[in-house]
Amino acid sequence: MFMRVDKLLIELPMPKKQDPNAGAALQELLGGKYGEMSTLNNYMYQSFNFRSKAKLRAIYDVVASITAEEVGHVELVANGVAMLNSGPDSDETGGTDISDAPFSAMQDIRLAASFLSNGGGAMPVDSNGLPWNGTFVTTTGNVIMDMLFNFHLECGARIHKLRVYETMTEPTGREVCGYLLVRGSVHAHAYALVLKKLTGVAIEKMLPVPNIDLGRIPECQKYLAEGRHRWLYTNSPSDYKAMAGIWGNGETALPGDPPGELEVVEGVPDGGKIPDLNGLASAFTPEYAPEEMLEIAQKLYAASR
Amino acid sequence: MFMRVDKLLIELPMPKKQDPNAGAALQELLGGKYGEMSTLNNYMYQSFNFRSKAKLRAIYDVVASITAEEVGHVELVANGVAMLNSGPDSDETGGTDISDAPFSAMQDIRLAASFLSNGGGAMPVDSNGLPWNGTFVTTTGNVIMDMLFNFHLECGARIHKLRVYETMTEPTGREVCGYLLVRGSVHAHAYALVLKKLTGVAIEKMLPVPNIDLGRIPECQKYLAEGRHRWLYTNSPSDYKAMAGIWGNGETALPGDPPGELEVVEGVPDGGKIPDLNGLASAFTPEYAPEEMLEIAQKLYAASR
Amino acid sequence: MFMRVDKLLIELPMPKKQDPNAGAALQELLGGKYGEMSTLNNYMYQSFNFRSKAKLRAIYDVVASITAEEVGHVELVANGVAMLNSGPDSDETGGTDISDAPFSAMQDIRLAASFLSNGGGAMPVDSNGLPWNGTFVTTTGNVIMDMLFNFHLECGARIHKLRVYETMTEPTGREVCGYLLVRGSVHAHAYALVLKKLTGVAIEKMLPVPNIDLGRIPECQKYLAEGRHRWLYTNSPSDYKAMAGIWGNGETALPGDPPGELEVVEGVPDGGKIPDLNGLASAFTPEYAPEEMLEIAQKLYAASR
Amino acid sequence: MFMRVDKLLIELPMPKKQDPNAGAALQELLGGKYGEMSTLNNYMYQSFNFRSKAKLRAIYDVVASITAEEVGHVELVANGVAMLNSGPDSDETGGTDISDAPFSAMQDIRLAASFLSNGGGAMPVDSNGLPWNGTFVTTTGNVIMDMLFNFHLECGARIHKLRVYETMTEPTGREVCGYLLVRGSVHAHAYALVLKKLTGVAIEKMLPVPNIDLGRIPECQKYLAEGRHRWLYTNSPSDYKAMAGIWGNGETALPGDPPGELEVVEGVPDGGKIPDLNGLASAFTPEYAPEEMLEIAQKLYAASR
Amino acid sequence: MFMRVDKLLIELPMPKKQDPNAGAALQELLGGKYGEMSTLNNYMYQSFNFRSKAKLRAIYDVVASITAEEVGHVELVANGVAMLNSGPDSDETGGTDISDAPFSAMQDIRLAASFLSNGGGAMPVDSNGLPWNGTFVTTTGNVIMDMLFNFHLECGARIHKLRVYETMTEPTGREVCGYLLVRGSVHAHAYALVLKKLTGVAIEKMLPVPNIDLGRIPECQKYLAEGRHRWLYTNSPSDYKAMAGIWGNGETALPGDPPGELEVVEGVPDGGKIPDLNGLASAFTPEYAPEEMLEIAQKLYAASR
Amino acid sequence: MFMRVDKLLIELPMPKKQDPNAGAALQELLGGKYGEMSTLNNYMYQSFNFRSKAKLRAIYDVVASITAEEVGHVELVANGVAMLNSGPDSDETGGTDISDAPFSAMQDIRLAASFLSNGGGAMPVDSNGLPWNGTFVTTTGNVIMDMLFNFHLECGARIHKLRVYETMTEPTGREVCGYLLVRGSVHAHAYALVLKKLTGVAIEKMLPVPNIDLGRIPECQKYLAEGRHRWLYTNSPSDYKAMAGIWGNGETALPGDPPGELEVVEGVPDGGKIPDLNGLASAFTPEYAPEEMLEIAQKLYAASR
Repeated sequence: MFMRVDKLLIELPMPKKQDPNAGAALQELLGGKYGEMSTLNNYMYQSFNFRSKAKLRAIYDVVASITAEEVGHVELVANGVAMLNSGPDSDETGGTDISDAPFSAMQDIRLAASFLSNGGGAMPVDSNGLPWNGTFVTTTGNVIMDMLFNFHLECGARIHKLRVYETMTEPTGREVCGYLLVRGSVHAHAYALVLKKLTGVAIEKMLPVPNIDLGRIPECQKYLAEGRHRWLYTNSPSDYKAMAGIWGNGETALPGDPPGELEVVEGVPDGGKIPDLNGLASAFTPEYAPEEMLEIAQKLYAASR
Repeated sequence: MFMRVDKLLIELPMPKKQDPNAGAALQELLGGKYGEMSTLNNYMYQSFNFRSKAKLRAIYDVVASITAEEVGHVELVANGVAMLNSGPDSDETGGTDISDAPFSAMQDIRLAASFLSNGGGAMPVDSNGLPWNGTFVTTTGNVIMDMLFNFHLECGARIHKLRVYETMTEPTGREVCGYLLVRGSVHAHAYALVLKKLTGVAIEKMLPVPNIDLGRIPECQKYLAEGRHRWLYTNSPSDYKAMAGIWGNGETALPGDPPGELEVVEGVPDGGKIPDLNGLASAFTPEYAPEEMLEIAQKLYAASR
Repeated sequence: MFMRVDKLLIELPMPKKQDPNAGAALQELLGGKYGEMSTLNNYMYQSFNFRSKAKLRAIYDVVASITAEEVGHVELVANGVAMLNSGPDSDETGGTDISDAPFSAMQDIRLAASFLSNGGGAMPVDSNGLPWNGTFVTTTGNVIMDMLFNFHLECGARIHKLRVYETMTEPTGREVCGYLLVRGSVHAHAYALVLKKLTGVAIEKMLPVPNIDLGRIPECQKYLAEGRHRWLYTNSPSDYKAMAGIWGNGETALPGDPPGELEVVEGVPDGGKIPDLNGLASAFTPEYAPEEMLEIAQKLYAASR
Repeated sequence: MFMRVDKLLIELPMPKKQDPNAGAALQELLGGKYGEMSTLNNYMYQSFNFRSKAKLRAIYDVVASITAEEVGHVELVANGVAMLNSGPDSDETGGTDISDAPFSAMQDIRLAASFLSNGGGAMPVDSNGLPWNGTFVTTTGNVIMDMLFNFHLECGARIHKLRVYETMTEPTGREVCGYLLVRGSVHAHAYALVLKKLTGVAIEKMLPVPNIDLGRIPECQKYLAEGRHRWLYTNSPSDYKAMAGIWGNGETALPGDPPGELEVVEGVPDGGKIPDLNGLASAFTPEYAPEEMLEIAQKLYAASR
Repeated sequence: MFMRVDKLLIELPMPKKQDPNAGAALQELLGGKYGEMSTLNNYMYQSFNFRSKAKLRAIYDVVASITAEEVGHVELVANGVAMLNSGPDSDETGGTDISDAPFSAMQDIRLAASFLSNGGGAMPVDSNGLPWNGTFVTTTGNVIMDMLFNFHLECGARIHKLRVYETMTEPTGREVCGYLLVRGSVHAHAYALVLKKLTGVAIEKMLPVPNIDLGRIPECQKYLAEGRHRWLYTNSPSDYKAMAGIWGNGETALPGDPPGELEVVEGVPDGGKIPDLNGLASAFTPEYAPEEMLEIAQKLYAASR
Repeated sequence: MFMRVDKLLIELPMPKKQDPNAGAALQELLGGKYGEMSTLNNYMYQSFNFRSKAKLRAIYDVVASITAEEVGHVELVANGVAMLNSGPDSDETGGTDISDAPFSAMQDIRLAASFLSNGGGAMPVDSNGLPWNGTFVTTTGNVIMDMLFNFHLECGARIHKLRVYETMTEPTGREVCGYLLVRGSVHAHAYALVLKKLTGVAIEKMLPVPNIDLGRIPECQKYLAEGRHRWLYTNSPSDYKAMAGIWGNGETALPGDPPGELEVVEGVPDGGKIPDLNGLASAFTPEYAPEEMLEIAQKLYAASR
């Protein structure tokens, strides 16, 4: 079972301008083969299909708890995309004249459907607009194979994050990349340790892939300073603590990162505010003539108190 | 952000026999266009892209909280599929002779890849083996349109659940359908009430679609008796309570169901035990010669205490 | 613009029994790469994109008018599929007990989704359940290339029709194949003549592909006796008559078929009755408790008189 | 069965310049999930699979006749795309020097394949170039569900049309949108009335979605003045008249539109001229050296007289 | 550049009976995500896109030469599929009566399209009939990442081969699996050694995945006895010898396999006879009335001498 | 079986500048429906599935040998794409500052994923980024049908090559097109001759499609002067010579091309140098800090001598 908390994993800075091509680049980290939809669904299905959970409890707990964090990663990237596609929040007013081609610029953005279909919202597609699909999931039921897949997936995700980051000038997108790079490195490290425990191969020594320290990325610094590269969250009110058999036990941070012991942290991060994403009447979000609707909605909210 | 609890929404009865074609039928409710991957991802992306959250708080809360429950629905169906594909748990022993074509029967099951690729595990594919994909998501940002889509989606999901149920003889699969029918009806009802509040159209009077009461389905009875057809969970430690502006306020159960007022329930259901899904050495799940590996794993678990 | 006539191109015999795997085989002729969705959409898009229509009027007319006939072919195959999936019409009564797994047999049919999603209806998918998609359309705008594509498409369609026919024991499916073989041969012949007129190559001498006369197929006989292998319909109240420049002019039937001149026939065939496809309450088609609904509907019909 | 008339539903103004990105935007209304290929194929397959046609005649007639109009909508959008991709008709001359990169600009248009593969022609793909596919069709056989799907589909189509319109500066594309908005509103209204008759829910009061009157769109005015928002065509020489049980009977235009009773109109609209789409030798449409070919073709046409 | 030799990598035993479901299972190893189309195209594109070839010559040579062997693997599996689908060669005679439903059994095979479309031939699809597609290729240009992907791919391929093998009773399919298991293990080993040389991590100690020795598979014995588990072919007349820097240098066979040093073998294996795959007139392969055609063909062949 | 030679079919000129949109256009010839992945896989699967090889030896040899050349065509286009995407080789140095958005320009290229995922490498996708897939393969087993498909495929490929050529200003891409146009014309001619031998129809007289001589393309001149439009390579050390029964026997070059007899050439072309494709540290190709890695790799290479 899953629960939801009305926060974003981190607070994202408001973009300075509307930049749909930046949003389109960020989509690679959402719906691409090495994006967050893939990490989420791979771990999710592997945790559902996990064999011999009782006997392999510590490993199951790693996969199951990271799954929950990945839903939050999908949320984070999706918010980043929507913010970049939409630009800074403006006043919501109705009544725009729609007959003056107010969105003619949307014909030339890379993924025009992100406006035409989604009104600037994020979608499970990659940076070329190709939809995410179920063949991106590997779940063989063989624990070595599945963990090896996950290790490779996180390394692949890292290279994609780095390259998307290298295209970003807007702080909104850069912050998304910076945070994900730190947390993705933790997940790669975790799967490496699982593999080491099961096979004796010190595959974590291969990290980081690509071979560049997080220290080179300014947006990672505050997270490294906090120690988030050494924390594996249980992402649960009270379960998944057996992951400490993998993440801990004297294992330490990767050589290029700030040193320290690996720690299991119960629960979820503090999180940040979820963007409100003001509507835009001329794009029919949430409606063309929203005033009356909003009035009703506010009464609803009052009634719920 | 999301959290995970190590329970299944309900406890599933162990299947009496291995029945991969029943598992394949149940896949329709997982990866089909009207399956749980679709309800999950539609509400998830809509909640991420939701415009004017502050002003439309009660509506946002409905979509956001149901999202969390849908992850649990995906989990429930996936477990049902894996159980039906695998049959009752057997002792886990290594060393089977793999050269005697021990799985020749797997050539004739409907979705052979569910064994060949997934060792009996569930996948995000439909009952014909077609992968779920991102085009199944609609998120226009227009709140009337998106809620109308959701209402239609839940009605479509209901007809698929009913038909899958009608093919099922195994209690495992029947229980999955029974529970989902009750909860899916709640979600259809919730989206109908949102639409009614926003447009004045009493679209909930169209329910149920198809026009058959839950009372005709034995597996639904215990849930109806509890009142679960009248409960909307917040699926959160402390958020999403504004949904009471929609679900409550004197609204009552649908005419054909046990009467009573609609109630918001904070948190998640009690849930049931997650199946252990014993491994099968000859299928290499979790491994061919699992003994040594398991021994290591148990040490890991001990170390985590 | 298009018009519709409430008839099927031919009358189909009622199947003797329900045979979903026969229906699944017939789907190849509907949604397969060489099925009727492909012939329809190729000619449809080519006719929309046709360049220099005024100068190439006779050729445009061939493509444009065959398009209309292909919509009828899609209709014919779809009806055949639905009839085979459903079996002979039974009395429509409500109130079946759905809790006795009345459709357990549907778990073992080849394309289970045809029941679970479509209640036995046809879908734009092939015999393996793969959806038809837009990449099956070729429209380069080069008239030689497009006509060559069409010629190859009809030859490919013919081999698929022959093989589907060879799997069929039910007269419903055999009749569909028999009729389509006759008409498909006409279309292959027509595109061959276009190519001959444009390039001087007597490509129609390559026909039939495969090299087997229609005379070998009992279901074709009545159509051959009528001369339908020599008729190209305008499929229009008054347009497309310039096709006589291609189909006619002394051109005659292919050597293995009953001899005679090629003729343009204005309008559409007489056609046959469209199957009523009685509903099945337990499959929720058109509803579970249809009596009241049907009563309303009959009043509607009366009101329209 | 279907017939074809060699006219376009309306006459389209010639574009002032070549504008492939406008053509690409218009593709959303052709091959997108909420485009005309979807409305066409949904209603087409639903009409083929329709259960209990005799008893539900009025409803069947609505679905069956709208199908025919939708083929014309596909034709209309496709012509609009081809015109925008190609620009104003120029003289057709052969012999351009192809070695000077005459189409270097085509590398930077959004959907380069629309030139490279289709020579500027339309294709069944969306505004991101993703092919239309058969999963966009819903045909459950349950009449409430299918009509609800159709209602939602037309609302979704409307929001896409509005947004595409808002990107258009060329009159060709604006006219396509304007006409489709009027006719799509009729279809949404028709499906709403079917649902009302079957369920008693006045779902048509939800219209329009999005909540903006057609009166705001200059290109809609002439069609509203004619009353086309109140007309449902039979699109048939003599069938489908029972639709008057749904469309008529005292039902009137939607509140925001010019008032009046709903009327069934027998047959099809008068229609406009189909664009000739002059070829372009350097793009090999219809050929590189077309003179001789055209001469032959003209002889063919003469021969057909 | 590539050359072809008219031999199969090994000689395959004739199947005893026609067994299309065995052929369908074998398709997993051809068009599945972990099948030979994937290994071929991953290494092929990686070798085309390989960066700094001069500096990383030994590694490039490994990837480039294995690519060539993988084309042969695709050929081997495809021949196995076609043999199982078709059964033992029969006399080729024309003139079968096609009107007696001679292929009615083909309606019930798992992948009916393999007969209807392909006449029993192999296709780039998986065991569920899903087409292979380009998203199965990973080529990031980062050499660590790409080699890690390849290592994981070969491990995944091995588990699929083992499971397909476990379903096979026909010697044709078992021989395909046995050979591929030996050669796939070599390729996994080779990529492991590349990674070890580049990162220092002894990842080859993780092998085999799954953890079962080839010695358990009778069909592998003759290849192990020859030493083929220790040979890496250059698959070239004279290139790719630098691979000896990886494969050799004192590296030895994996612990569970017959011991010995790893050796680079120049050129390709001796190979076996390519199956003739006799035609079947009633399936129109190579034609319905083949006699005359064959006569012509034999003249052609004579003319070429 | 296949062998590889470490050469490119021709030497490609270094591009003058980085031009990813030119690379994206060239992708149409790689992963498009009429691109080299399609010619390769069609002939490859047809040769694997070829029926009655002994009796139809000359035809089999044509298909089988052209297959090998097509792998080289895929290689040629892929190299062209990678060169255009990357621009002229620069010095490889590590240590670039990645936090300055060094690749911001990559957000606006047509196929952003070609950088984000592939670091500028080629992929099996078309010019719109759509992945190549197995449905592009036709292999019916009927030799007339399959050869007709191939003939149409080569004609379609030619029109795509011509149009891509017309968009190219960079010599790298123009050279690729020029060479492929010459060789594709040979293959179209070869399949035409096969069809003529089997059916008596002189279909080669339809060539070229489109109707423009290679003489109009400067980049073709040197190949025409050599006579490559008259040569069919065996692409084999010693097999496939029976193709001389088709290609030869007095057949001559097409009318518009330099005259001469058709000749079978044993083996493969001389070929040209394979581009080294220098890495780019900031894109992590082959790594971010490549110095140490390269040092190791050079030792490996030394060890292999």
